[in-house]
Amino acid sequence: MSTTDKELRVGMVGYAFMGAAHSQAWRTVNRVYDLPARARMALICGRDTGKVADAADRLGWDAYTTDWRDLISRDDIDVVDVCTPGDSHAEIALAALAAGKHVLCEKPLANTVAEARAMTAAAAAAQAAGVRSMCGFNYRRVPAVTMMRQLVADGRLGVIRHVRAAYLQDWIVDPQFPLVWRLQKDRAGSGALGDIGAHIIDLTQFVTGQRITGVSAVTETFVKERPLPAGSSGLAATVDGSGSLDGSGSLDGNGPATGPVTVDDAAVFVARLDGGALATYEASRFATGRKNALRVEINGSLGSVVFDLERLNELEFYDATRPSAEQGFSRILVTEGEHPYMSAWWPPGHIIGYEHSFTHQMRDFIEAVATGSDPAPSFADALQVQLVLDAVTRSAEIGSSWTEVEPALAAVAV
Amino acid sequence: MSTTDKELRVGMVGYAFMGAAHSQAWRTVNRVYDLPARARMALICGRDTGKVADAADRLGWDAYTTDWRDLISRDDIDVVDVCTPGDSHAEIALAALAAGKHVLCEKPLANTVAEARAMTAAAAAAQAAGVRSMCGFNYRRVPAVTMMRQLVADGRLGVIRHVRAAYLQDWIVDPQFPLVWRLQKDRAGSGALGDIGAHIIDLTQFVTGQRITGVSAVTETFVKERPLPAGSSGLAATVDGSGSLDGSGSLDGNGPATGPVTVDDAAVFVARLDGGALATYEASRFATGRKNALRVEINGSLGSVVFDLERLNELEFYDATRPSAEQGFSRILVTEGEHPYMSAWWPPGHIIGYEHSFTHQMRDFIEAVATGSDPAPSFADALQVQLVLDAVTRSAEIGSSWTEVEPALAAVAV
Amino acid sequence: MSTTDKELRVGMVGYAFMGAAHSQAWRTVNRVYDLPARARMALICGRDTGKVADAADRLGWDAYTTDWRDLISRDDIDVVDVCTPGDSHAEIALAALAAGKHVLCEKPLANTVAEARAMTAAAAAAQAAGVRSMCGFNYRRVPAVTMMRQLVADGRLGVIRHVRAAYLQDWIVDPQFPLVWRLQKDRAGSGALGDIGAHIIDLTQFVTGQRITGVSAVTETFVKERPLPAGSSGLAATVDGSGSLDGSGSLDGNGPATGPVTVDDAAVFVARLDGGALATYEASRFATGRKNALRVEINGSLGSVVFDLERLNELEFYDATRPSAEQGFSRILVTEGEHPYMSAWWPPGHIIGYEHSFTHQMRDFIEAVATGSDPAPSFADALQVQLVLDAVTRSAEIGSSWTEVEPALAAVAV
Amino acid sequence: MSTTDKELRVGMVGYAFMGAAHSQAWRTVNRVYDLPARARMALICGRDTGKVADAADRLGWDAYTTDWRDLISRDDIDVVDVCTPGDSHAEIALAALAAGKHVLCEKPLANTVAEARAMTAAAAAAQAAGVRSMCGFNYRRVPAVTMMRQLVADGRLGVIRHVRAAYLQDWIVDPQFPLVWRLQKDRAGSGALGDIGAHIIDLTQFVTGQRITGVSAVTETFVKERPLPAGSSGLAATVDGSGSLDGSGSLDGNGPATGPVTVDDAAVFVARLDGGALATYEASRFATGRKNALRVEINGSLGSVVFDLERLNELEFYDATRPSAEQGFSRILVTEGEHPYMSAWWPPGHIIGYEHSFTHQMRDFIEAVATGSDPAPSFADALQVQLVLDAVTRSAEIGSSWTEVEPALAAVAV
Repeated sequence: MSTTDKELRVGMVGYAFMGAAHSQAWRTVNRVYDLPARARMALICGRDTGKVADAADRLGWDAYTTDWRDLISRDDIDVVDVCTPGDSHAEIALAALAAGKHVLCEKPLANTVAEARAMTAAAAAAQAAGVRSMCGFNYRRVPAVTMMRQLVADGRLGVIRHVRAAYLQDWIVDPQFPLVWRLQKDRAGSGALGDIGAHIIDLTQFVTGQRITGVSAVTETFVKERPLPAGSSGLAATVDGSGSLDGSGSLDGNGPATGPVTVDDAAVFVARLDGGALATYEASRFATGRKNALRVEINGSLGSVVFDLERLNELEFYDATRPSAEQGFSRILVTEGEHPYMSAWWPPGHIIGYEHSFTHQMRDFIEAVATGSDPAPSFADALQVQLVLDAVTRSAEIGSSWTEVEPALAAVAV
Repeated sequence: MSTTDKELRVGMVGYAFMGAAHSQAWRTVNRVYDLPARARMALICGRDTGKVADAADRLGWDAYTTDWRDLISRDDIDVVDVCTPGDSHAEIALAALAAGKHVLCEKPLANTVAEARAMTAAAAAAQAAGVRSMCGFNYRRVPAVTMMRQLVADGRLGVIRHVRAAYLQDWIVDPQFPLVWRLQKDRAGSGALGDIGAHIIDLTQFVTGQRITGVSAVTETFVKERPLPAGSSGLAATVDGSGSLDGSGSLDGNGPATGPVTVDDAAVFVARLDGGALATYEASRFATGRKNALRVEINGSLGSVVFDLERLNELEFYDATRPSAEQGFSRILVTEGEHPYMSAWWPPGHIIGYEHSFTHQMRDFIEAVATGSDPAPSFADALQVQLVLDAVTRSAEIGSSWTEVEPALAAVAV
Repeated sequence: MSTTDKELRVGMVGYAFMGAAHSQAWRTVNRVYDLPARARMALICGRDTGKVADAADRLGWDAYTTDWRDLISRDDIDVVDVCTPGDSHAEIALAALAAGKHVLCEKPLANTVAEARAMTAAAAAAQAAGVRSMCGFNYRRVPAVTMMRQLVADGRLGVIRHVRAAYLQDWIVDPQFPLVWRLQKDRAGSGALGDIGAHIIDLTQFVTGQRITGVSAVTETFVKERPLPAGSSGLAATVDGSGSLDGSGSLDGNGPATGPVTVDDAAVFVARLDGGALATYEASRFATGRKNALRVEINGSLGSVVFDLERLNELEFYDATRPSAEQGFSRILVTEGEHPYMSAWWPPGHIIGYEHSFTHQMRDFIEAVATGSDPAPSFADALQVQLVLDAVTRSAEIGSSWTEVEPALAAVAV
Repeated sequence: MSTTDKELRVGMVGYAFMGAAHSQAWRTVNRVYDLPARARMALICGRDTGKVADAADRLGWDAYTTDWRDLISRDDIDVVDVCTPGDSHAEIALAALAAGKHVLCEKPLANTVAEARAMTAAAAAAQAAGVRSMCGFNYRRVPAVTMMRQLVADGRLGVIRHVRAAYLQDWIVDPQFPLVWRLQKDRAGSGALGDIGAHIIDLTQFVTGQRITGVSAVTETFVKERPLPAGSSGLAATVDGSGSLDGSGSLDGNGPATGPVTVDDAAVFVARLDGGALATYEASRFATGRKNALRVEINGSLGSVVFDLERLNELEFYDATRPSAEQGFSRILVTEGEHPYMSAWWPPGHIIGYEHSFTHQMRDFIEAVATGSDPAPSFADALQVQLVLDAVTRSAEIGSSWTEVEPALAAVAV
């Protein structure tokens, strides 16, 4: 830890999957990186007293509260870390910004474009007062992803022709998997599209430095009715044999109550990027055997790169400027000290895991806040992702017709 | 070779890339398989006397001719093998069928739906007289592909949810690569779409046993003007510094004459299959580093399969009915005697190559002809592929709007 | 964290590469696992006051000391964690055991068999008084490795015929890489053999449940003289342009002083295991391009497994009892909740890294100490590894002649 | 085919696995390559009249004979191709050379060093009369292997430090697999060692340009008694329920007769090469799941290469002179026209198979014979392999003690 005495007192809202991942990162970041400020895990917030108390103890937070408004109103909190489902992002983040707190908000930024626009406007206003905001597209900080962006930025791929992105999971293939919050539109906003599709939209725009301008899309819900859940954590859940969910479930005597799946199981779309690239995107929770397979391939006139999140320490790079008989996809083990973020970790070849992307994110966030600069991705960047999600949804509703992505500045310009 | 004295006298039209591949297969097939008839490489046809004479000598054909009508009119020819560019398929195949010859026609069946419909009708009519016809979608006979179909047919994948197909090459990334016939619409019909996209359309319909019902598509020509070629063979070519091509090239004093690229460099589309699967397709000649990367992944409710033509001896199979802790994609080396077509070849683990798919195709074709059954894929099957290509083209022309694939029976019904 | 109030106060000696890795694990273990005791990072020890003070602050230890004897003598320390180079393991561990402290000692257990025997005897004696000891072969706790052991133990591999193990690195290929302590026999005991060869000896004996009974070996030092180091951390170092190292370096006016490399750069040996398997082992720091490539393949009469530490979340398993046409190496992503150690981490497909093996090790150590059971690997297990290392060294000295591994019980029996 | 009228009339002895592979190559070579002579498949020889007649018909030979001495004595045979088991190589090849025939002899050259020395001496004597001889280590002609040699020869790997070679199969893991000729010392000479170990010895010496100078070895026969075979072809066989084999089998009333396995199931050895490299070799028929896994990795001071025969179209190349952050193993698809042997085949990415290595071998053999140069590997090269096999056998017999490889010139010098 650096010798600085500057402390950033963090208040985190939510303690499930993302809460645990963020906690591990807040706990680790100053132990690994020399930074101009120290994060203090000051306060955790959740609605259930018993559960949040347990979480505070287990995850190592100094205190807990059950009211996020309390968390925001406290003077001894500098940073608000929003780890709740998407339906509460806007309300919490807006309040936090209004209270002058720096905000780190999980992705997707919001459940609707309108919310995202409001958040972006609030962030821009707060910025003038030195308040920082960032959206948690953590995969930007996977070293191999950061390196892909550098290769593109350095011109190593030449003119980008193709982007091929898929984020594939299989955790709801079983039709008996219950109707958890991620399968309910009012909580999650959308299904695979917003949950994992948002990641590949942001990641490919980040890596290429290009923005998606239009899309043609299809979405699908393969299993339209599911049992109501008894409880869930992370992506796992158990089925509840009784009761209903928000009154919408069907109850009969022969089995567990069920309710309608109101989000997409899969979304696929073709897109164009403003630099001329043609792109395909696919997000699905029905890709049997694919657990967390975020895969991206980018082909340019001078080279190509390939990335797979299940092998996140590796980057494949094809350099078409090498002697032709020796060209091939090089499997680069992105674990050397000179690779992004890696000098702080272990010797070459000693791999890191999923959670490290959060530690890297906290590193950059802390540095930005402490030095008075703006971290990326900004809320405006996240709004752009939201606008793509919105175009995808609209295209799917009008028979896949080509649909322009609405400009981010439209509302701001008003 | 079997003890049969029955001989099938083959006349082949064309002697370039496909002609060489077919010759290797005709030469080999009876040396490897016991079949009810022997193929005789009787006659080869090409327009240039010197070149076709050389080809006959080099590839091992008994005789040659420069007139395909001569080839068809001869009594001592049983089979006509059409290996020319797509613009002459219909004329040659229709004449051959009319002359009572069995026809093997390279893919795509034709350059237009109208031609393909006419050929399909002619083939149906000829069938009544015992004349057989087949379209050369050779990849169906890659053992791993045949095995995929068997797994699906046996219910091992359950309900198919996703098809993910791409056929990627990179041989025209260089904008100085010349304007060969494959880049001219009047010769080739279309670009990547018909040349390699047709393969993945046929392959995925074959494997899944489902038909594509509708598409939403985008096509792109990245490099719109190219130098005129001096000559080409296979996929390679050299640039001609002088002259024009069909009068369409531009000539100036500063460089080689150029002409417009009139086909797509890449085509991407989303599709639905009649069994409920959602599919993505991509065909491109601009995927730097991908030489012949036909890749297919199919996800079903009980399992998944993955295939890559660059590793055509391998099949990845994920069986979701195994104990969950042991589930994983199994790399099956499809080289055992019990695998399709393989008992005739080498011991386990001794791999085969691209050309073997043609030998397997000739094996099945000879067997069908000799035993009086119909080989697959039929012209009707190939027409269905043509109809998908047509729907893709139409969708791309109307802003990617969802476009139904026209029924194959429509014209026949008239 | 569990509700227990039981605390294990840890004192760690050493703060370099292993010290950092252990710190991350002590810090994390109770945040992830529910355990019957909590680890407290109480005291860290190093010889240099400034450096150890910095390390305490950075790594998060409550206090520091520069005298390991002080650490051992304190009443408020329950566990001594030995992370120093091998030449001080015996002295520190023996003193700690004598003081009644539970001991976790890094591998290899010692630099000589005599030391390892003494430590094993002391551990056995201390055990009677409820004092626990463990050697830090952390790779046993990589989930895929633990799973391999379970597969073997469950009979899934049948009779084991072959073990094929290599641990390959390349960090000293450059002859200008300096003479760090790991290249000096008096500090490190041996070179690649003891540092990384020890890992594959332990790992393969652990997985197979068999012990190496004899070896035939060759060792090699490719670069016999190297520049003296200015400083080093982890596996990296810089060359010192002046000064000597322990008086053994050569000094001249033309370049940096150099000294002799007194350990092996590579060691290869053939071995037999007591269950009948034939094995090959290779440890090298000269395998260009291999960063941390610990690779193990085990072939049994019913199946095979393959593991690669650079892809530590994956296990390849070949099950020869499956239908023969479907047999293949399955790539199992060992990230499911039902896989060893994984239920506490992230959702399926979200990978872990190198450091997690230490967290798992601390989990098992804490549980054993808190519940009064003996953790594995014991000092006796580590002595067995030391005896194999010794047999390898002796075989290499006598022209590779077959050399029996000395029984572990020999000295104990006296 | 070239316009040459020069013909090489080939007489082949043997028609099993190797006979079929050679036939496919003789049939194909002039159809693919322009060569100064044409091979004519003139005469095939086998002991069983019916079987050899069938083979001649099936494989496409003009005539057959049951007496190899007849084949050698005929004036209309230019080349003798020896495809029999190793016990008859010496007799046939010596007679053929004495008769002035060019000889292509399958590997291993002979079953004993004495035979190999005699053959080498005869080949040297015949060479003076313009008679050519070659041993069939076909894997030298796999394009990726040839390319490896070129990379080494061009200095791209620098000083070679490590060779890691294994040839793994699993076709006799089942103890009920019968006692085919490859498991009988008097026929096969040795087991895995001579059959597949010989390949990796030759291949690594070829690629590195270095010779093995000494070895330390262990061999093992896991299954010591097997059922007598009813018949076998290739590597497959069926068990005979009656009769004995050479009188050595045991007969009882409870099962099929069995006989002793008189060769090794597996051989492992450590070796040194004359350029300073340290090497490990493993040949086994008990590596469950490995069908034909010839794997070689070579590490040099400037780079490394990796090859796997099951993916023979690929070469992995690590170039340590590239920018360090971009270093990685490049998967080169060795299918470009500029790669060795490949310009005659298909477009890039269209892979070749196992049999093509024989076609390449015949290409080089025909060219050498027609142009009056000596093909490689010579009998002297093959003798060197035999001497290594001999050293391995001797080392294994004397407790793995280091054993020098006898110089090839020793006998010649007498």
